[in-house]
Amino acid sequence: MSVDPESHRQPSPQGSRIDPYVGAYAARAQGMVASEVRALFAVASRPEVVSLAGGMPNVSALPLESISEIVRQVVTDQGATALQYGSAQGDPVLRERICEVMSLEGIEAAADDVIVTVGSQQALDLITRVFVDPGDVVLAEAPTYVTAINTFAAFQADIRHVAMDDDGVIPEALEENLADLTAAGHRVKFFYTVPNFQNPAGVTLTAERRRRVLEICHRYGLLVLEDNPYGLLRYEGEPVRALRADAPDNVIYLGSFSKTLSPGFRIGWALAPSAVRAKLVLAAESAMLSHSTFNQMVVGRYLAAHPWREQIKDFNEMYRGRRDAMMGALEALMPAGTTWTRPQGGFFVWVTLPEGLDAKSMLPRAVNERVAYVPGTGFYAGDDGHRNMRLSFCYPTPEQIREGVRRLVGVIEAETALRDTFGSASAPPTGGSDVPAPDLP
Amino acid sequence: MSVDPESHRQPSPQGSRIDPYVGAYAARAQGMVASEVRALFAVASRPEVVSLAGGMPNVSALPLESISEIVRQVVTDQGATALQYGSAQGDPVLRERICEVMSLEGIEAAADDVIVTVGSQQALDLITRVFVDPGDVVLAEAPTYVTAINTFAAFQADIRHVAMDDDGVIPEALEENLADLTAAGHRVKFFYTVPNFQNPAGVTLTAERRRRVLEICHRYGLLVLEDNPYGLLRYEGEPVRALRADAPDNVIYLGSFSKTLSPGFRIGWALAPSAVRAKLVLAAESAMLSHSTFNQMVVGRYLAAHPWREQIKDFNEMYRGRRDAMMGALEALMPAGTTWTRPQGGFFVWVTLPEGLDAKSMLPRAVNERVAYVPGTGFYAGDDGHRNMRLSFCYPTPEQIREGVRRLVGVIEAETALRDTFGSASAPPTGGSDVPAPDLP
Repeated sequence: MSVDPESHRQPSPQGSRIDPYVGAYAARAQGMVASEVRALFAVASRPEVVSLAGGMPNVSALPLESISEIVRQVVTDQGATALQYGSAQGDPVLRERICEVMSLEGIEAAADDVIVTVGSQQALDLITRVFVDPGDVVLAEAPTYVTAINTFAAFQADIRHVAMDDDGVIPEALEENLADLTAAGHRVKFFYTVPNFQNPAGVTLTAERRRRVLEICHRYGLLVLEDNPYGLLRYEGEPVRALRADAPDNVIYLGSFSKTLSPGFRIGWALAPSAVRAKLVLAAESAMLSHSTFNQMVVGRYLAAHPWREQIKDFNEMYRGRRDAMMGALEALMPAGTTWTRPQGGFFVWVTLPEGLDAKSMLPRAVNERVAYVPGTGFYAGDDGHRNMRLSFCYPTPEQIREGVRRLVGVIEAETALRDTFGSASAPPTGGSDVPAPDLP
Repeated sequence: MSVDPESHRQPSPQGSRIDPYVGAYAARAQGMVASEVRALFAVASRPEVVSLAGGMPNVSALPLESISEIVRQVVTDQGATALQYGSAQGDPVLRERICEVMSLEGIEAAADDVIVTVGSQQALDLITRVFVDPGDVVLAEAPTYVTAINTFAAFQADIRHVAMDDDGVIPEALEENLADLTAAGHRVKFFYTVPNFQNPAGVTLTAERRRRVLEICHRYGLLVLEDNPYGLLRYEGEPVRALRADAPDNVIYLGSFSKTLSPGFRIGWALAPSAVRAKLVLAAESAMLSHSTFNQMVVGRYLAAHPWREQIKDFNEMYRGRRDAMMGALEALMPAGTTWTRPQGGFFVWVTLPEGLDAKSMLPRAVNERVAYVPGTGFYAGDDGHRNMRLSFCYPTPEQIREGVRRLVGVIEAETALRDTFGSASAPPTGGSDVPAPDLP
C-alpha cells in the first residue's frame, strides 16, 4: 500500500494547466491511473479519522534499538561493499537467507534462482514486462490486489477475474475461464494469486484447491504467480504449503520483508524457474541497475543477528489481538444483511454490504463520520465490487478498530434508512474525481 | 554501472537447459540483452587485473564514521516514518534538498516537480515507459550510455545516434536527423544527452551548443532528457549551466547521488514539467509502490548534517589526480595513430585506436595481459565503435592507472604488429558469447 501525504498539497497538474506533452505519451500511459487506495490516504491520515483503509504494517512494534545497531554495523564493518553498486540479481548472502525464510512454507530453492527486488511490487512489474504484450490475458482472483491491477494495466494486459469463495479461488471457475479463453484464441500469460490471507478478501486457498489449481495450470501450460507477502502472519490454524513447494517449474513465487520486518527497506524477491529468472535479472538491470546493497546487507544481517522467528511470533500476537477486535466488533455491531470474511492471518477483512448499498458512494459520508475504508471497486479491473469494502486491522489499535467499526455501522444504518426511504442510497459520485475531496469536512 | 560478481558461477540457463517459457515472453523481452560492461566485471574483478572498465565511484573515500552515525540516527529518531511505506513521489524533505543541489548548476525548481527514483536509471526507465511506444524514435549521442541503450531497447525504441565531437553533440547533426526523421514520418520522443563529462566519451557540451540544442529541440517540440550524474565532479574549467536551467518546460533533468555520495543508497531523481512528473509518479507507483523511505531520510540527513559541498571538493581532488595520471600515461605511452578525449571531469576517457584495430576482438588478449576496458561497440545501438574503448579512471589508484595503460599499450602494439604482418589484427570473436570466458588465463 502506498502512502502519499503530499498529494493533497498540490493542485492536479492536468486540472490547472494544459499538458503540452499530452500527444506524446505512449499508449501504455493511458493505463496508468491513480489508485483509489493511494488517493484515500490524504483523507485518512487526518488524526481524527479512524483509518481502516491502509495496509501499512504496525512498525511501532519493531525492535528499533536492534535495527539501529545493525544499520550502524553495516556501514562500519562492510561500508566499502554496502555503499557500492551491487549486482542486478541481488546480494548472494541475502538470497541464501531468503531461501531459509521460504523453507518455512515448504519451499526448497537455490539462491541462484532468487532475484531481490524493490518490494515484491517490483517483481510484479518485472514479470509483467517480461511476459505481457498488449492485449495478452492475465488471470487474477476476484477481487485482487489493487496495485497488481495497476501494474498489469500499465503493460496493457487484458485482466480477467476468476471467482473466489471463502476457500480461495474456485478451481472450476479457473478451468472454465481457461477453456473459454483458449477456445477464443487468447494468449493467457499467467494466473496471479495471493493464496494466503488474500489482499483484499482475507481468505486462504485450501490445500486441496492448491493441488487442483496446480494441476489445471500445468495442463494448460500456464505459469502461476504466487504472491505471498502475508504467509507467515498466521494467527490461527495450520500453515498450508506454498504452491511453489509442489511445482517448482510452474510457479513464480513472490515474497517480501515489508510485513515481517519493515517496508522501509523495500526488500522483496522473486523465486523463478532459472530461464525466467535470467530474464528478470536483465529486466531489473535496465529498470534500476541494482537494488540498494546497503539495504540488502541490513536485512541479511537482521536475519543473521536478530531472532526473527520469535519477532514474527510477537508480531502475530499483536495482529491477532487486532484481528480479534475487528471480528468481535463486526459480530457485535454489524446490521443484518452485512457479511464478511474470517481471516486466519494477514491484514484484511472483506465486507459485503446489504443489497442496494454502494461502498464507493458511501465513502464521503463515512469520512464525514471520521472512518475510512477502501471501496471494493478498486480491487476489480472492471466495474464490480460496489457492495464491498476492504477493512484493515493492521495499523489501528484494538480500541480504534472498535470505534471505527462503530462509526462505520452508523453510516451503514443511515444509508440503509435512505435506501428504504428513497429506493436507493447515496448517489454515485459524479465529476472528474473518484475520491472524496481532501478538504471534506 | 552494474556489477555481477555472481554471474560467472552460474551456467547460462539458456545454454544448459531448454526454456519452457521461450514462446511466452513479451516481444519487448527480445530487446533485453546482457550488457558487455556487466559481463566484463566477472573477469575484471580478479585482483591481478587492472580494471579500467568499471564506472564505480571510489567509495573508500567516503566519510564512513559520519554516515554510520547518520544511519543510526535515522532509525533512532525517525524510525516510525523511515521504516514505513512512503509516497511514490518521494520524501518531501529530500526533494527540497535536491532542489538546493540542482541550484549549483543554475536550476530553479520546485520540490513538487521532483520525483525520487532508484538511481537515475529508474528515472530513465519510467520516462521511457511513459513516452515510448514500440518503434518510436529516441535520439542519443554517438556513443551513449550503455544501460540507457538497454532501457530504450527494452521498450522497443528505434534508437538513432547523433554525431559528437570534442565539444559534445553537434547541433547541425541533431537538426539534420530531426529534419530527416520528421520528413519520413517518424515519431521522435526525446533527445537523450549526458552533457557533462559524457559517459562514455568524457566530453562536455559547450554553453554555445547548449543554446543551439535547446533552440532546435524547442522548434521541433522535442523533449530533452538531460542526464547529469557527473556534473559536480569537475576537475578544471568553469561549470556550464544545465540545459534545464534555461528551458524548464522542455527538459527532463536526471540527477543522482551515486557519484557525489554513494551508489549504495540508490537515490536518483528526475525533475520534470508538472504534467510529466504526475505521469512518472503513477508509473513509479506501479513499478515499486515507493522507494525506501529510510534511504531517502539518510541522504536528506547527510545533506543537512554533513559538509557535502566540501566533501565533493575532496572527491574532486582525488579524481583529478586519477584523471591526471590517466592523461599523463596516455600522452607518454600511447603509440602514434591512437587518439583520446580530454575530460575536464567525470570518470571516463574515450580512446580511438589506429585504423585496422578492433577493441572488442582485442579484449581477450588485453585481459590475458591483465588489463580490462569496455569495448566501444557497447555504446552504440548499431554496429559501430569497433576502433573505440572506454577507459575509466575513477576506481583504480594513479599507480594502477599508469600500470594499466602500460599493459594496454603493450597489447595495442602487439595488435598493430599483427595487423602489419597479416593485414588485420585479432579475428573478431565467434560463437555465442560476446565476452571473454571468465576462466580465461
